[in-house]
Amino acid sequence: MSSDIKARIIKQVAPDLALVEKALEENLDPNLDLVRKIASHLLFSGGKRLRPLLMIHSARICGYDTGFEILFSIIFEYLHAATLLHDDVVDEADMRRGKRAAHTKWPAPQVVLTGDFLLARALAIAAKTCEPRVISVIAKITQAMSQGEIDQLEQKGKKDLSETQYLEIIEGKTAVLIQGACQSGGIIAKASPKKEAALASCGYHLGMAFQMADDLLDYTATAQELGKNPGADMREGKLTLPLIHSLAQANDADREWMHGVMAETDFEQDRFEALREKMFGLGGIAYTQTRAQHHVTQAKASLEIFEDSDSKALLQLIADYSIERKV
Amino acid sequence: MSSDIKARIIKQVAPDLALVEKALEENLDPNLDLVRKIASHLLFSGGKRLRPLLMIHSARICGYDTGFEILFSIIFEYLHAATLLHDDVVDEADMRRGKRAAHTKWPAPQVVLTGDFLLARALAIAAKTCEPRVISVIAKITQAMSQGEIDQLEQKGKKDLSETQYLEIIEGKTAVLIQGACQSGGIIAKASPKKEAALASCGYHLGMAFQMADDLLDYTATAQELGKNPGADMREGKLTLPLIHSLAQANDADREWMHGVMAETDFEQDRFEALREKMFGLGGIAYTQTRAQHHVTQAKASLEIFEDSDSKALLQLIADYSIERKV
Repeated sequence: MSSDIKARIIKQVAPDLALVEKALEENLDPNLDLVRKIASHLLFSGGKRLRPLLMIHSARICGYDTGFEILFSIIFEYLHAATLLHDDVVDEADMRRGKRAAHTKWPAPQVVLTGDFLLARALAIAAKTCEPRVISVIAKITQAMSQGEIDQLEQKGKKDLSETQYLEIIEGKTAVLIQGACQSGGIIAKASPKKEAALASCGYHLGMAFQMADDLLDYTATAQELGKNPGADMREGKLTLPLIHSLAQANDADREWMHGVMAETDFEQDRFEALREKMFGLGGIAYTQTRAQHHVTQAKASLEIFEDSDSKALLQLIADYSIERKV
Repeated sequence: MSSDIKARIIKQVAPDLALVEKALEENLDPNLDLVRKIASHLLFSGGKRLRPLLMIHSARICGYDTGFEILFSIIFEYLHAATLLHDDVVDEADMRRGKRAAHTKWPAPQVVLTGDFLLARALAIAAKTCEPRVISVIAKITQAMSQGEIDQLEQKGKKDLSETQYLEIIEGKTAVLIQGACQSGGIIAKASPKKEAALASCGYHLGMAFQMADDLLDYTATAQELGKNPGADMREGKLTLPLIHSLAQANDADREWMHGVMAETDFEQDRFEALREKMFGLGGIAYTQTRAQHHVTQAKASLEIFEDSDSKALLQLIADYSIERKV
């Protein structure tokens, strides 16, 4: 099922994807070789280009077809890369997309400043849309993401986090950017307020589903699939929904045992396996799958007001893929 | 002379300054208390509000008088504060405006992310101008500043830096932002291309003069005037024009002696005094004053195409003040 969906998506997006890659290369345009190296290390390391594709098809589902949607779509990949560069420094994560995180290869200040540079490139292209509301959307995204990340830093290492707090964190961390990409597609297409709101809603729910699926994969995928060791979130002191729900369902003895594993700084693989078993048993995995599926359903429902089109079909496929994927 | 100019400027700008302060407070609008604390620590620590004032009067010199110039002017103070927060982390400087730098009070990641938040606030207000070219200007500023800072990091600790390299660095570090503030004043006033270019030129030269004056003060002012120890640039391995020109004029023996002082990690006050004496003797101080004065003259010349007005007189006064000031 999953690989079939993926094949269908890839077939439909391949030509656009090639154009997006070309635009990402051509518009980077740094003066300094070091900036190109740091930015390229992350930008051209096998990202799915989810945000550009969503923006392109959000514009096209509204009938936009000037071709400029390709250029405008890379705003959201540059923005995404900028936040990843800042987050890598913030999180002190060692791996990203199966490669060493930028800040382990270059000094953190240079990585932070390259993030600023990418944000500037995103803005330069956003200005070309001549739509001040795209700028407002970018401002809103950046505001939510920076505050969300600070919030997550403040919560880090806590033994308990409520589901509500978790939802706020992933909204700021992932959903607002994907929401903004979809909404901006509607804005450049000069869609009706109703259609623009529907695209924003679709993007929001897609973002929530994607992040929940990511958080699931951190417990269910293999190191090879992930490009980093599973359980990384927990090791970094980040509680995500599978664990939050399991803790909430656990009896006192189980909870104490789980807190014990979580507190180990350098736990063995078999301890992680045991924790994973426990989380399956307590329903944390299944519950997260159900919540992610709920957001997929909501995302697809938001698209109902649009007439049938290739872009609508693709957005629906991407929604399904968001939780079916293995990486 | 200097204190007279300052008094005249303050008298003219006091009412606007109060409105700018109010706008800076009201538009900060963070969700998180920590973000407010970090941002306020820098924003409300006695900045001169040079960039907002230049933007306001660049708009008014073109006849703009809707009152919105106050709101729009804070774009450039938020942007300035955002870059200072990122630069403080990058430079690992301990003092800023006579207070401890933000990153010595809070962890660096939170400081970086608060910088991102301030940039987002600047963008949100910029979107309200409904002038995509203001966004292009902000993109250009951010691009130049991030790359300029990386460039400076790469040059750090070098014993020799050419005057041309120095000029490139201060252009990226200071001049582009002040240039952008003045140009944006012209853009919101819908000034003719000629007037907009004149304002951009005025801002560029003002920025160059201001930075040279700053670099002079690091050798000529007292610790009390500076709010930090003089000679800080050299201690951080940053060569600025007074030293660059002195090194270029020195004979081999003097140059070797100066390189010796520069290489000391923890030099005594009397060593610094001796170096300062040497720099006066070699003409590094006087040369920098002459170059700064040249930029002041250019800035004022750029304003000649404008008819006489209060704003024109004020911009001329600020140009004079840029190199007369003691702090």
